Amino acid sequence: MPVLHQMQVSGNCYKVRLAARQLGVEIALKEYGLFDGLTRKPEFLAKNPNGRVPLLEFEDGRCLAESDAILWYLSEGTALLPSERWPRAEVLQWMFFEQYSHEPYIAVARFWLAFAPKEELEKKRHLVSEWHARGNAALGVMQAHLTRHDWFAGGRYSIADIALYGYTHAAADGGFDLDAYPAVRAWLQRVAAQPGHVPLEFAW
Amino acid sequence: MPVLHQMQVSGNCYKVRLAARQLGVEIALKEYGLFDGLTRKPEFLAKNPNGRVPLLEFEDGRCLAESDAILWYLSEGTALLPSERWPRAEVLQWMFFEQYSHEPYIAVARFWLAFAPKEELEKKRHLVSEWHARGNAALGVMQAHLTRHDWFAGGRYSIADIALYGYTHAAADGGFDLDAYPAVRAWLQRVAAQPGHVPLEFAW
Repeated sequence: MPVLHQMQVSGNCYKVRLAARQLGVEIALKEYGLFDGLTRKPEFLAKNPNGRVPLLEFEDGRCLAESDAILWYLSEGTALLPSERWPRAEVLQWMFFEQYSHEPYIAVARFWLAFAPKEELEKKRHLVSEWHARGNAALGVMQAHLTRHDWFAGGRYSIADIALYGYTHAAADGGFDLDAYPAVRAWLQRVAAQPGHVPLEFAW
Repeated sequence: MPVLHQMQVSGNCYKVRLAARQLGVEIALKEYGLFDGLTRKPEFLAKNPNGRVPLLEFEDGRCLAESDAILWYLSEGTALLPSERWPRAEVLQWMFFEQYSHEPYIAVARFWLAFAPKEELEKKRHLVSEWHARGNAALGVMQAHLTRHDWFAGGRYSIADIALYGYTHAAADGGFDLDAYPAVRAWLQRVAAQPGHVPLEFAW
């Protein structure tokens, strides 16, 4: 079965575990530490020259990087990815929004505030206000959309929701207060109520 | 015909113009200034709450944001997007790489060094070395891939190449020296030799 090279606490890796679970795709997990540097070693760089997890490695040796590309690959032809051209484009719009305008602030704030050693955080302290400003801007864009729609694309639960759920549901770890975003909070509950949903901590 | 809300000097907008041109898709251009603030005004935010160009607006009022989502939408069913599952995933892997690990350094360095007012650049001067380090890391990943492959996905020219060409071909504007990346330079020439290629400056 495919091996997911991953870090359990990473929201990007959680996305892949959650989608695989809901799709009934069996994967094995290979765990890396946040600080062990193994993703920068030659053995890992041979699989992903960009030195990042998640990375999905198939039995024949092919490797696929980038969490949202993995979500797309796993969900093609399933109920988690619309089959029509327009909602597919919407799915991608929201996944690129997530990686460009959301993750670099909401996930990065979470990493530094919740996981990094205190002395390392102090070197980044001057960046926290910008992470919060830009992360809140992203949450505001989500709130505006979710005020008028239950889901991000195609009128139903899809990998666009999984992609955005990964770090949004853990945003408090990075110092974000979701009370200001009631439509986002209601959507988080709808996602968590989907059949086969598992929390970030779940591993199998 | 669809209207591309755009800035002519933006590599993200150039990607869309180039793909549309090569696909024979007619679009009209609506130009915004780098510093006129119009993409943050209510009229534009009603079209894209994230306040960014490119944005493709269709005759019926639907709007699609995110350059690489627009590329995907325009190229579904054409020679610029493989039809098989694996190379499609490769296309997305490289487009997400571009938006997460490449554009935030190579495009951002170009904006500040080549277009921003000098006094504004001075406030960002302390970030230039990090932009260059991370941008060169991205160019190194591209160089490693292009040493073994002519194209980024599926063994042929695709929207993955267009996505990465957008800012790579203009990297010198941001202070990057491509002499260290001969495979990248050779690939830039292959992209520029494709039928229907137009330079960033081209508008129609």
